[in-house]
Amino acid sequence: MSSHLTRLRVRYAETDQMGVVYYANYLVWMEVARVELCKTLGFRYKDMEREDGVLLAVIQAECRYRYPARFDDEVVIETSVSAASSRGVEFTYEMRCAETGRRLASGTTRHIFLNGEMEPVRLPAKYRPMFGLKGST
Amino acid sequence: MSSHLTRLRVRYAETDQMGVVYYANYLVWMEVARVELCKTLGFRYKDMEREDGVLLAVIQAECRYRYPARFDDEVVIETSVSAASSRGVEFTYEMRCAETGRRLASGTTRHIFLNGEMEPVRLPAKYRPMFGLKGST
Amino acid sequence: MSSHLTRLRVRYAETDQMGVVYYANYLVWMEVARVELCKTLGFRYKDMEREDGVLLAVIQAECRYRYPARFDDEVVIETSVSAASSRGVEFTYEMRCAETGRRLASGTTRHIFLNGEMEPVRLPAKYRPMFGLKGST
Amino acid sequence: MSSHLTRLRVRYAETDQMGVVYYANYLVWMEVARVELCKTLGFRYKDMEREDGVLLAVIQAECRYRYPARFDDEVVIETSVSAASSRGVEFTYEMRCAETGRRLASGTTRHIFLNGEMEPVRLPAKYRPMFGLKGST
Repeated sequence: MSSHLTRLRVRYAETDQMGVVYYANYLVWMEVARVELCKTLGFRYKDMEREDGVLLAVIQAECRYRYPARFDDEVVIETSVSAASSRGVEFTYEMRCAETGRRLASGTTRHIFLNGEMEPVRLPAKYRPMFGLKGST
Repeated sequence: MSSHLTRLRVRYAETDQMGVVYYANYLVWMEVARVELCKTLGFRYKDMEREDGVLLAVIQAECRYRYPARFDDEVVIETSVSAASSRGVEFTYEMRCAETGRRLASGTTRHIFLNGEMEPVRLPAKYRPMFGLKGST
Repeated sequence: MSSHLTRLRVRYAETDQMGVVYYANYLVWMEVARVELCKTLGFRYKDMEREDGVLLAVIQAECRYRYPARFDDEVVIETSVSAASSRGVEFTYEMRCAETGRRLASGTTRHIFLNGEMEPVRLPAKYRPMFGLKGST
Repeated sequence: MSSHLTRLRVRYAETDQMGVVYYANYLVWMEVARVELCKTLGFRYKDMEREDGVLLAVIQAECRYRYPARFDDEVVIETSVSAASSRGVEFTYEMRCAETGRRLASGTTRHIFLNGEMEPVRLPAKYRPMFGLKGST
């Protein structure tokens, strides 16, 4: 499955007193990146949530920090779907400094699909091809 | 109307590369303080939102920054209701360093009451005495 | 003095359980906008901080919330320098929904210049013309 | 090595439009918990950073999300040092709902010691016994 590149610029708010980006913010960037990837795959995450009542709930997140991102750096995030089933999906992320190409961090998030009552559901058929899955018939 | 004291400790996440607390986080602290004040007044904000469908929507926030708070400082926030009507409420906040007593910041937030459809509503009668208002009859 | 337009997209992280953007995040957006405005004025804020040791410390921030921004909305922020002296500067911000043009919020931040010891300083001469001030000679 | 219990209350700012705590905020809570654990072990993290110039840089973070925390929940975090050497340290975290005892999330963070130039260093001898390590002689 193809990957998607997201670009963002480090905000002052995202730094901490160590002078680098605070570690939890990489997870925020992963969310920005997977929302963009979803658009590339053919749907808007907000529509899936609002119109179909399907939530993409995180069950695991992991990040390896290799080199610190700093204020005003442009960061490029390469995101891809590394696993998918009708029950859930896994994304992987590679974060690099746009200027130097240096790898900053890499991460993985695993998700399950939930309905509005926070119960596990199968991904509606219309979304399956977007994740490389066969639609149910 | 009486005031309430809230204590919190500055998180590393709340600092920025200037080595002090990032300015938007004082508004987060004001929220923590007014949620505690509501408990002192006799109700839990989450119940008002969940059970009565009344939201306390911010229409204005203001903060004056006097001295920077730093990581691991204990901050004391004195919060009070500075104005109230059946349509909305205003809170004021004085933030001090617990150890030195030094004034860190002072702020004000103004709110209106909304229903779940984000339309302005009057505060339900049962909450009015808590804000020093006469209950409707 | 000319204004600058900044565009950003609302992150999921920026929403709260009311289903709209949490109020403190508008101050983060103001920071993003003024960093971009500085570039338009001719300097990078991070260079001013790193190379000249001049910090732009916030002494007051104010925001009026008019209509809630929501997840995945594109927001346009028009930023301008509304006052400037060698001691400090004031920025104003108008935030609109890019799609509808609807005004979301408007804000003001006031800043003073500090050195690395957190003492007030005059803005170095080389930056003054950028804020519409006469350079010292 | 003994563990430490940290208590905190979920802030409105920490929720997202799913009505639960946004996933990156669990990493913020882990930081709050390990700062408290350090105090229990016998030192203040801010002193180690300020006085000895030793930074505790995160190289990996992982979180498994089991049940969503909600606004105003009290969360109890049990933190312990799960591995330590003179080069780095690993913490593990169990997060539970104080009221129900339900497990919310569990996490791990791995850190290395850096000096002010962001270079790896050995933990100064005076801190080693606090992490269950022999002091250098």
